[in-house]
Amino acid sequence: MSVTHPAGFRASGVVAGLKSTGARDLALVVNDGPRHDAAAVFTSNRAKANPVLWSEQAVRDGRIDAVVLNSGGANCFTGAFGFQTTHSTAEAVAAALGVAAGDVLVCSTGLIGVGDQSFRDAILDNVPAAATALSPEGGAEAALAIMTTDSKPKEAVVSSSAGWSIGGMAKGAGMLAPGLATMLVVITTDAAVPAEALDRALRASTRVTFDRVDSDGCMSTNDTVALLASGASGVEADEAEFTAALTALCLDLARQLQRDAEGASHDIAIEVVNAASEDDAVVVGRAVSRSNLLKTAIFGNDPNWGRVLAALGTTDAVFDPYRIDVSMNGVMVCREGEPGEPRELVDLAPRETSILIDLKSGDASATIYTNDLTHDYVHENSAYAS
Amino acid sequence: MSVTHPAGFRASGVVAGLKSTGARDLALVVNDGPRHDAAAVFTSNRAKANPVLWSEQAVRDGRIDAVVLNSGGANCFTGAFGFQTTHSTAEAVAAALGVAAGDVLVCSTGLIGVGDQSFRDAILDNVPAAATALSPEGGAEAALAIMTTDSKPKEAVVSSSAGWSIGGMAKGAGMLAPGLATMLVVITTDAAVPAEALDRALRASTRVTFDRVDSDGCMSTNDTVALLASGASGVEADEAEFTAALTALCLDLARQLQRDAEGASHDIAIEVVNAASEDDAVVVGRAVSRSNLLKTAIFGNDPNWGRVLAALGTTDAVFDPYRIDVSMNGVMVCREGEPGEPRELVDLAPRETSILIDLKSGDASATIYTNDLTHDYVHENSAYAS
Repeated sequence: MSVTHPAGFRASGVVAGLKSTGARDLALVVNDGPRHDAAAVFTSNRAKANPVLWSEQAVRDGRIDAVVLNSGGANCFTGAFGFQTTHSTAEAVAAALGVAAGDVLVCSTGLIGVGDQSFRDAILDNVPAAATALSPEGGAEAALAIMTTDSKPKEAVVSSSAGWSIGGMAKGAGMLAPGLATMLVVITTDAAVPAEALDRALRASTRVTFDRVDSDGCMSTNDTVALLASGASGVEADEAEFTAALTALCLDLARQLQRDAEGASHDIAIEVVNAASEDDAVVVGRAVSRSNLLKTAIFGNDPNWGRVLAALGTTDAVFDPYRIDVSMNGVMVCREGEPGEPRELVDLAPRETSILIDLKSGDASATIYTNDLTHDYVHENSAYAS
Repeated sequence: MSVTHPAGFRASGVVAGLKSTGARDLALVVNDGPRHDAAAVFTSNRAKANPVLWSEQAVRDGRIDAVVLNSGGANCFTGAFGFQTTHSTAEAVAAALGVAAGDVLVCSTGLIGVGDQSFRDAILDNVPAAATALSPEGGAEAALAIMTTDSKPKEAVVSSSAGWSIGGMAKGAGMLAPGLATMLVVITTDAAVPAEALDRALRASTRVTFDRVDSDGCMSTNDTVALLASGASGVEADEAEFTAALTALCLDLARQLQRDAEGASHDIAIEVVNAASEDDAVVVGRAVSRSNLLKTAIFGNDPNWGRVLAALGTTDAVFDPYRIDVSMNGVMVCREGEPGEPRELVDLAPRETSILIDLKSGDASATIYTNDLTHDYVHENSAYAS
C-alpha cells in the first residue's frame, strides 16, 4: 500500500493515454490531514523541468495537500506552454479536491521535450477520473502509474512502535544519478511533524540514501522527493527517531531503484573507508562508480582492480595512491598499492557486489550504490527513446 | 614511416613475448642528433605508472636520446619492484646505445598490476634485439609494437616548406580521456628547436587536441606524449609555424585514436559555441561527452537532444538553459530551450556525427571528440582483461 499505509492519505493511478502501452500513467496522492505539513527536495540539475519549477514554489510555505504525477512525458524544455500545462494541472487537481492550486505538487517523468497540446489534454481530461478513483487502498495503483522503464513498482513502509508509520513509492531506472534529490519519490507519514522538521529530516535522509545512488552517472531534470505528513496518528514523532526511520525507508527505496536499474546484472556497493572526510569518501566512491571500464569489467565478472585505482586517481581527495587497499567481494586484490591476493580468488558471479576501498587517511566513510554496464543497458537506451 | 620520417631518427619494433598473441610488443625510438632537445607531457591522473614517474624526471633537463616503449603490461601499481624494472630498462637501453640512462624515456601500456619478474625478464632480455633492429625505416614496426586493443597503428607526418618535418605515432583505444596528456604518443622532428620552445609548443598543441578527446571518460595511468627534436634538417623552425604544424599533427593522431576507439560506431564532434570562456566550452562539451544515455542514443541513431540538455545542466558554466540551441547533424532540434525542427529530419546513419551547442553567452568555443557507447564496447571491456 506504500503511500496509503499511513493514516490520512488516499491515492489513485489511472490511464490518461500518455503511455502508448495503455498502462496507468496518471497518479494522485492526497493528504486528508488533519495536518498538511510537507517538505520536498529537487534535482540540482540547472536544466529543471516545468513541474520542478512549479513545485519548488508550491512547497515553499511548508503545506501540500496533494501530489499529481504523470509518466509518459517529462514536460521539460517545453517552454512557456509547458509551464502553463503544469499550472493548469495543479488548478484542475485543486478544483477536483476543493483545495488551493498553490498546495498541489506536480511531478512529470518520461521523454524530455514532450509536453504539447495532446499531452496537456490527456492530463487535464483525466484529472477528474483520478480524483474519483482516490482510495485509502490506492497506493499500489499510484506506484504503477509513475513507472517508465521500471520493471516493477517500488514501495516501502516503516512503522514506529510510537504509533506512527511512513510509507513511500518511487520510480526510476535510468538517468539515475541524483544531485540534491532524485527520481520521483512520494513519502507519506501520519506522524505529527512540523514542516521545518520534515525538511530537516528529508534533507538528512536523502543525503545518505538517494544521493548515493549513481547508477549511470546521468542526472535527471525532473528529480523530486516529496514528504507529506498528515498527523492522523495523533502522535508527535521524536525528530531523531523520525529521521532514522525516514532514512531507513529512503535507503530501502534507493536500493530498489538500484536493483531495477536499466539492464543491470550486478548491484555494486562501493564502500570507501578511512577517508579524511565524508566528502572525500563520496568523491572517491562516485568517481569509481562512473568508470565505464570498471562497470563493464564487473559485467564480465572480471575483478579488474586497476580500473578502480585509475578512477580514484582522477580525484583530489586526500590519499596516497600507493598505500591504498582494494577488496572485491572480500578478497584484498590490491594491498598498499600493489597486487595482493590472486584475482582468481574473487567470485563475481553473485548479483550483489562489494568493492571496499581503504584510503588510510582518516576515519570518515561513505557507500555509493551503482550498477554494472551491460549489453541490456546499451540496448534499452539505444533502441527506445525515453 | 611516421617517427622515422624526420631526419636523424631510427626506430624498431620487436617481439619480447609480453603479448600472448606473439605480436611485436617492444619498441625503440632513437634520436641520433645532432641535437637532442625534448619535451613531454604526462597523465594528470594521481595514480601514475612507474614509467611515468621515471620519465617525468628524465625529461626535466630537456634532453632525451631514446624512448623505449612496451605493450603487454602497464607496470602500474607494481611497487618498488616495478619502478626498478623501469630503471633497469632505461639502463639496458643506455648500455646498448652508448647513452646515459637519464636520457632514456620509458613508456608502458597494458593491464594495470602487471609488472612481475617475467615481465621484467622479457623486456631486459630483448632490449639488445630492439637496438640491433634499429633502422631509419623502422617507424612502422615501432607503431605496431605499441598497439594494445588498437585495431590499427596510428601514424602521421607533417612537412614544412622551410625544410623540416614532424612525424608521430600513437596508440590508444580505451581508457581514453586524457587529462594533461594522453595515451602513448611519440613525436619526432628534424627541425632545430630548443627544449623550452618544444615544451611550449607541445603544451599548446596537446591542450587543443589530445586533451579534447574524451572517448570513454576514463583517464589512464600511463598517458605520455613525448616530442624529440634532432635538428638534423639544419633548419631552425619559426616557433609559431612549428606550433601550428605540431597542432595539425596532434589533431590528426587524436582523430585516429577517436576513430579506432573500442567498439565505437559513431565519431562524435561536440562543438560548443558562443560560450563565456573557452573553459566553459570545454566543461560543457566534456559533460555532454560523458553522458552514457546520449552515447547509447547516438548508437541507436536516436537524436535524443533532451539528453544533451540534461547533461549540460549539471555544469556550472555560464548560460541560460532555456535559451540554448542544439543542432544534430545540421538540424536544429532544440531552439531557445524548446523543441525545434522535427527530430525525424536528423540522419544519424553516417559514422561522422556533429552536435552543435550554442550557449549564447559569449564568443568562446571548443570542440570535444567522443564516441558512442555500443554493444562492442561492453563486449571488449567485459570479455577481456586489458
